[in-house]
Amino acid sequence: MQGTQISTFIHPKGSLETLSQREVQQLSEIGSGSAHQLFRQCALAILNTGVQIDNAKTLLEAHRDFDVRIHQQDRGVCLELINAPADAFVDGQMIASTREMLFSALRDIVYSASESGRPRADLNSSQGLTEYVFHLLRNARTLRPGLEPKLVVCWGGHSINQDEYKYSKKVGHELGLRGMDICTGCGPGVMKGPMKGATIAHAKQRILDGRYLGLSEPGIIAAEAPNPIVNELVILPDIEKRLEAFVRAGHGIIIFPGGVGTAEEFLYLLGILLHPDNAGLPFPLVLTGPRESQPYLEQLHAFVAATLGPQAQQRYRIIIDDPAAVAVEMTRGMQQVGDFRRDHQDAYHFNWLLKIDLALQLPFDPTHDNMAALELSRDLPAHQLAANLRRAFSGIVAGNVKERGIRLIEEHGPYQINGEAAIMRPLDALLQAFVAQDRMKLPSGVAYQPCYRVVS
Amino acid sequence: MQGTQISTFIHPKGSLETLSQREVQQLSEIGSGSAHQLFRQCALAILNTGVQIDNAKTLLEAHRDFDVRIHQQDRGVCLELINAPADAFVDGQMIASTREMLFSALRDIVYSASESGRPRADLNSSQGLTEYVFHLLRNARTLRPGLEPKLVVCWGGHSINQDEYKYSKKVGHELGLRGMDICTGCGPGVMKGPMKGATIAHAKQRILDGRYLGLSEPGIIAAEAPNPIVNELVILPDIEKRLEAFVRAGHGIIIFPGGVGTAEEFLYLLGILLHPDNAGLPFPLVLTGPRESQPYLEQLHAFVAATLGPQAQQRYRIIIDDPAAVAVEMTRGMQQVGDFRRDHQDAYHFNWLLKIDLALQLPFDPTHDNMAALELSRDLPAHQLAANLRRAFSGIVAGNVKERGIRLIEEHGPYQINGEAAIMRPLDALLQAFVAQDRMKLPSGVAYQPCYRVVS
Amino acid sequence: MQGTQISTFIHPKGSLETLSQREVQQLSEIGSGSAHQLFRQCALAILNTGVQIDNAKTLLEAHRDFDVRIHQQDRGVCLELINAPADAFVDGQMIASTREMLFSALRDIVYSASESGRPRADLNSSQGLTEYVFHLLRNARTLRPGLEPKLVVCWGGHSINQDEYKYSKKVGHELGLRGMDICTGCGPGVMKGPMKGATIAHAKQRILDGRYLGLSEPGIIAAEAPNPIVNELVILPDIEKRLEAFVRAGHGIIIFPGGVGTAEEFLYLLGILLHPDNAGLPFPLVLTGPRESQPYLEQLHAFVAATLGPQAQQRYRIIIDDPAAVAVEMTRGMQQVGDFRRDHQDAYHFNWLLKIDLALQLPFDPTHDNMAALELSRDLPAHQLAANLRRAFSGIVAGNVKERGIRLIEEHGPYQINGEAAIMRPLDALLQAFVAQDRMKLPSGVAYQPCYRVVS
Amino acid sequence: MQGTQISTFIHPKGSLETLSQREVQQLSEIGSGSAHQLFRQCALAILNTGVQIDNAKTLLEAHRDFDVRIHQQDRGVCLELINAPADAFVDGQMIASTREMLFSALRDIVYSASESGRPRADLNSSQGLTEYVFHLLRNARTLRPGLEPKLVVCWGGHSINQDEYKYSKKVGHELGLRGMDICTGCGPGVMKGPMKGATIAHAKQRILDGRYLGLSEPGIIAAEAPNPIVNELVILPDIEKRLEAFVRAGHGIIIFPGGVGTAEEFLYLLGILLHPDNAGLPFPLVLTGPRESQPYLEQLHAFVAATLGPQAQQRYRIIIDDPAAVAVEMTRGMQQVGDFRRDHQDAYHFNWLLKIDLALQLPFDPTHDNMAALELSRDLPAHQLAANLRRAFSGIVAGNVKERGIRLIEEHGPYQINGEAAIMRPLDALLQAFVAQDRMKLPSGVAYQPCYRVVS
Repeated sequence: MQGTQISTFIHPKGSLETLSQREVQQLSEIGSGSAHQLFRQCALAILNTGVQIDNAKTLLEAHRDFDVRIHQQDRGVCLELINAPADAFVDGQMIASTREMLFSALRDIVYSASESGRPRADLNSSQGLTEYVFHLLRNARTLRPGLEPKLVVCWGGHSINQDEYKYSKKVGHELGLRGMDICTGCGPGVMKGPMKGATIAHAKQRILDGRYLGLSEPGIIAAEAPNPIVNELVILPDIEKRLEAFVRAGHGIIIFPGGVGTAEEFLYLLGILLHPDNAGLPFPLVLTGPRESQPYLEQLHAFVAATLGPQAQQRYRIIIDDPAAVAVEMTRGMQQVGDFRRDHQDAYHFNWLLKIDLALQLPFDPTHDNMAALELSRDLPAHQLAANLRRAFSGIVAGNVKERGIRLIEEHGPYQINGEAAIMRPLDALLQAFVAQDRMKLPSGVAYQPCYRVVS
Repeated sequence: MQGTQISTFIHPKGSLETLSQREVQQLSEIGSGSAHQLFRQCALAILNTGVQIDNAKTLLEAHRDFDVRIHQQDRGVCLELINAPADAFVDGQMIASTREMLFSALRDIVYSASESGRPRADLNSSQGLTEYVFHLLRNARTLRPGLEPKLVVCWGGHSINQDEYKYSKKVGHELGLRGMDICTGCGPGVMKGPMKGATIAHAKQRILDGRYLGLSEPGIIAAEAPNPIVNELVILPDIEKRLEAFVRAGHGIIIFPGGVGTAEEFLYLLGILLHPDNAGLPFPLVLTGPRESQPYLEQLHAFVAATLGPQAQQRYRIIIDDPAAVAVEMTRGMQQVGDFRRDHQDAYHFNWLLKIDLALQLPFDPTHDNMAALELSRDLPAHQLAANLRRAFSGIVAGNVKERGIRLIEEHGPYQINGEAAIMRPLDALLQAFVAQDRMKLPSGVAYQPCYRVVS
Repeated sequence: MQGTQISTFIHPKGSLETLSQREVQQLSEIGSGSAHQLFRQCALAILNTGVQIDNAKTLLEAHRDFDVRIHQQDRGVCLELINAPADAFVDGQMIASTREMLFSALRDIVYSASESGRPRADLNSSQGLTEYVFHLLRNARTLRPGLEPKLVVCWGGHSINQDEYKYSKKVGHELGLRGMDICTGCGPGVMKGPMKGATIAHAKQRILDGRYLGLSEPGIIAAEAPNPIVNELVILPDIEKRLEAFVRAGHGIIIFPGGVGTAEEFLYLLGILLHPDNAGLPFPLVLTGPRESQPYLEQLHAFVAATLGPQAQQRYRIIIDDPAAVAVEMTRGMQQVGDFRRDHQDAYHFNWLLKIDLALQLPFDPTHDNMAALELSRDLPAHQLAANLRRAFSGIVAGNVKERGIRLIEEHGPYQINGEAAIMRPLDALLQAFVAQDRMKLPSGVAYQPCYRVVS
Repeated sequence: MQGTQISTFIHPKGSLETLSQREVQQLSEIGSGSAHQLFRQCALAILNTGVQIDNAKTLLEAHRDFDVRIHQQDRGVCLELINAPADAFVDGQMIASTREMLFSALRDIVYSASESGRPRADLNSSQGLTEYVFHLLRNARTLRPGLEPKLVVCWGGHSINQDEYKYSKKVGHELGLRGMDICTGCGPGVMKGPMKGATIAHAKQRILDGRYLGLSEPGIIAAEAPNPIVNELVILPDIEKRLEAFVRAGHGIIIFPGGVGTAEEFLYLLGILLHPDNAGLPFPLVLTGPRESQPYLEQLHAFVAATLGPQAQQRYRIIIDDPAAVAVEMTRGMQQVGDFRRDHQDAYHFNWLLKIDLALQLPFDPTHDNMAALELSRDLPAHQLAANLRRAFSGIVAGNVKERGIRLIEEHGPYQINGEAAIMRPLDALLQAFVAQDRMKLPSGVAYQPCYRVVS
């Protein structure tokens, strides 16, 4: 890797962390799958802010001689960085946000490592998993009981075009002008735009304690390194905990244009919101983008109508090219969320009343058997169909672009899906449209072809 | 119990606590030995600040209709108090410090209850116990890594005379003028005097973040209800954890006159400081009192010389009637502690390097067998003799004044102690002196007589 | 003067002051009546906190070699102290409150010196004088527009007995528990007791921004050096500005037992409150003391009835030996003050609507002519009689104990007062009672005899 | 004017201002030249943030029905806005920065109005004028004695092109990453870019107290309305006070491309820096711009060489297209400024030691007589030549584009300048270049022709 390297000692600032001797020792034990390895990987991603790299493997290979060690000292622990990328430094001084994030990662990995031995929650039950997500967020001091609902989650692509990026900045600006905080998945693109816009707006509104919460997980932090505006970073142990953290800690969600991942997240959310237990529960959800993105959003909208039905469309609003309207809609939604939680004695800082099925809390492994067993019929309750669609979607995407999925297809041929045609056709159309709009990263030179076959 | 009662809802202020649904539920389950029972008992003690009652039983009996319930609400949990003593309120508003302490107790009991299921530390090893004390203090946010050593622990009686109380205030004032913080066991007397003096001194020095740390445990909180100046309250699960918390979190200790409990604490500390591993480790320790208390302090001093030898006297200084000199001595000691920790890479906020034998971390049960087995010989290494003396002392006191000890003596006759005469004689003299100085609370009308017999 | 001396440089802390080159120069010009001389005198009084000395002359003589110089530096001005009394230092470090007060004095003297050249207000009109008091307080940042009415002025003697001192502490404690701030004249006794009590109470209520406002003036600061709890010190240019500052910035007044000065202040206040323009304006006023002080308070009360009439007694309440009742009464009064100011669009931080006659804003010179010209008749409107009584009182006291007054009496014989007997008799009785209660400091060995003669 | 209007009451936030009755009255008196008129004009400009209008007259005409009134209230003064432009509001709530600036304007105009009656400084002497600038800045709480030198003044055009705007943002970002604060003249363009960049950088560095100081004056505030990032606004009474405020409060200056005004400011600064008294005084000065702006900067540089000589070029550095280098150069300069002030006991917060000739503190009136009297010869000391060039420049610009100047030329024909040809030729070339680069706003359709004639 080109670029200079810096070796230095870093002392915590802000949320200082005190560690016990055993915790320091745990982090010092080198080995595959160890807490130390995990921390090294996350630290490297954090230090690489600004440089875009697709995955953790590439990053680690490019910085083989990078290492991080932890020392107990008089004023708490300090980190020793060896051969760190110089980008994280200004005139030899580490940027404060990077420093903070390193210690946030340390905190979360220490906590996870400790819990992985003897967890205090039952990780096989839905309630236990929710409890665990709560503990992770509380330990990260993300749950602030005094605050009114105002945390807006922004989802969308991390490699969007310039127009969409600028639009996301404007939406963030309008949200910030109305005092709202931003939560994203941490990386560039839609993860960064709204935070940048909100930073300027918060400055105008003299809001000094604006929150820019980034929720990440070890598997994606390399690809989506936290942008430096993030002032609260939480690294959840896996993708399902992270998704649950978004919907339980956030008070509303805005979906910007993105790729297939964004669509999958949208289906995850519909799977929750369409659950009968959540019928009366307010959850502001807006799909938005600049004028150019209208086709993308309409495609998604049509797909929902065709598969989950028009009543599913009631759970969100689509707003085209109108940042202020998006922010006003969110403001109104926050009000309803606040009223509802007060009336139902639920916490502002954690959405306990939201029902999430265990099916959505557990990962889906796209084997041929699992794909064949998926029930995709409009006879199912809408929330179950949404959950299954999310899985089918996840599998199809894997079969097209992910290493493990492609290998499975090569070995066993296309997936056999017992999907109703009335569902599979729109799905196919949607994927085609993503390809056409250049939103699905296919291996170069490869024409898209479905990796599944519908078994009538 | 005379006095009006108030039923009300109390919302957290300051260190807000967020609780999970399971934690709220745990605290709501009523039953003997339950977290709810423990919390009710501590809450009652905290609400009773200012009223002096000797033990938890009396207090609970006087307030049979008191109860406390916990509710999840929009801004976090709130407490419902039913028939609370009115003393904790001013014009119907709960005093802020009381409110804070209620939520501190809640925090600590929730944490202990959670750990009691599946503790993350090994509670059978010395290192595991220390780890556990660390976790308890860290969870209570007592460990602040940024601070220079300046936390002075004050030990001594909670029912001292007016002169000694005033003297403790003066010492606190001099400590406060020099920027030092105060840690005590939470109750009245020496627990309160230094805090009150330091409060005035901190006001003069414009120190807004002065710390008044109270370390308590469920068994004594009723007898030693936290005085309202305490601005950090930690309830440790038992007396041994509390003692370890004092010596690991504090940077120096001042011992004021007190009763037998104070003497026992002094021996506990000598048992630690005389351990060869702690030979070079600085630990400022001053015994002090007003002119009138000189005999008491000299008695203790002579007892140390006679049993543990003159080198044990090197571990502390005695200062009579000179508050400024005590504070100057502590200031000098803090400097040494700071230098040592820096040099040895130990944390300012937790004294990891201090060696504490498992023997001092585990409770001592004063059965006849245990007492007979005690080795009390000057042939022993001084730190072991100190530890055994502490146990003998503890047993003898129990045999004289504690319920269980008295019953054991009634059943089995006096303890048989295989103690060296050169040790037992000074011990006897010391106890006699305490009786003469009215520092040992004997059942009224009873003349002191040793409850042990020396078996040559 | 015994005691060591310290020469050192002092840098500002807290409210840093920036001075212009001309201001620095003004303060450096030595000479009688100069700003430098005034500052030196005030600085010496502030440094002498804790040591009680009766007047400025004695103090200056005892510290002839003391001086203070001012230097421009990179981070603002610094003070050079030469031969400062060592009492203001702890281990060679100046106590923070003393340091703050030195710079407060500097600020006020610079401002007065600047205004004395070309004042921006018309100092010959009542309105101009009020404007000037406003500017002085605003420049000292004493006027804080965001705060609810809660500033309680405590008046009373600075050399009261121990019981009265303790009582004033208890009243301060009860005020502090109810969130009220304290304003006094800066010295010991009643000036200090309520502040000390409130400090402890504010600590219990976790009030970090409690205000302890001291209003002084160059002529008395030596005799009533600010106690170190004072965290806002304002030095007004003379006694009349100081009195006006009390009644315009304070929201209510408590009068504790005191000497003749206290009685004079009481009459000043009645002179204002009885003015017809102030008829509907709420102004909480309580006279209080411990059980032993009941005679003193009743004497004052009877004097008011006999001279100003029973309706004048409606302007205050007398509460004996009940600190909580005093605080509750003040709390209620603050509520009324708040309502009134809101309704009448007057500022919480400055009582613009209170009418003060020019007669009460200007000093009274007790010459024989002035005394003879006083109209003391119950035919006068009560507020004018109160104002004249205050002057008579002031003159008589001067004739008995003040240097200039005594000399005038020696030269010209007793004052001739054209007072109505029905007024002069109770006045005489009141003064006699003060002598009997040892509240009037007469030259030692001198029996009290009236220095005036009533001319039918 | 299109756009909706809002009438509302605005309460202060942040730096609350308390006003005396007389001050409220002064502001309420309507009339030409009154404080009320001035405040109304400034308030309108502030409310118009974001809308670009060339001058105050247009703005006032467009909002004839706008008015602002001031009311005393319980918590201080409040403003009543009548028919205010709706742009300053979000969902009916005024943007916090706008609110702050309104009260800043109020503060400054109240202060100026008060001083205009009886100023405390002698406004005819150089020292008196400096003293006055000091008082204005101190009253605005702009002088903060505790801070290290880190306030960078950015000068340049307010209507620059997009590339230059983006470049100024990048420079601001690099300055912000190094902890520096930004001071500009308040408007858009170069006034805003560096502030916006620094805001993002300060967020990354977790700097919560970053300063964005805007110095304006009534005559230009309409044309250069403060951008909403400005968090300290000071309105100086005229252009010369404003220029002096820049050079005395700022610690270094960066000059970006601009129009003729920027060039005039540059000459003003050279007039100061070339003064022999300022020979050894460090004053970091950088001229910078993106690659495209190189010609402009080189033109200026050449003009300096040709007229003031190469030694004048030693007073600044030119850096092309390298934001980080600019910031590093400033960082180094700040260090030197700090060292110098420490060594020479000058304040960090106000550059007392900088010598400014009275000639540069007084305005220049470009009459034909004044222009003819200008001495423009290389025989003059460089600093005097620079000062005269600034005047010539100012007159020529006036003659070309300013109302008064154009009228004077129409009446009396071109200015007769007795300038040395070696000076006048480069001046002419510089102006031609500005026209060519579209940096001089000429009345449309008019070709540039010199409005002066060189009289051998």
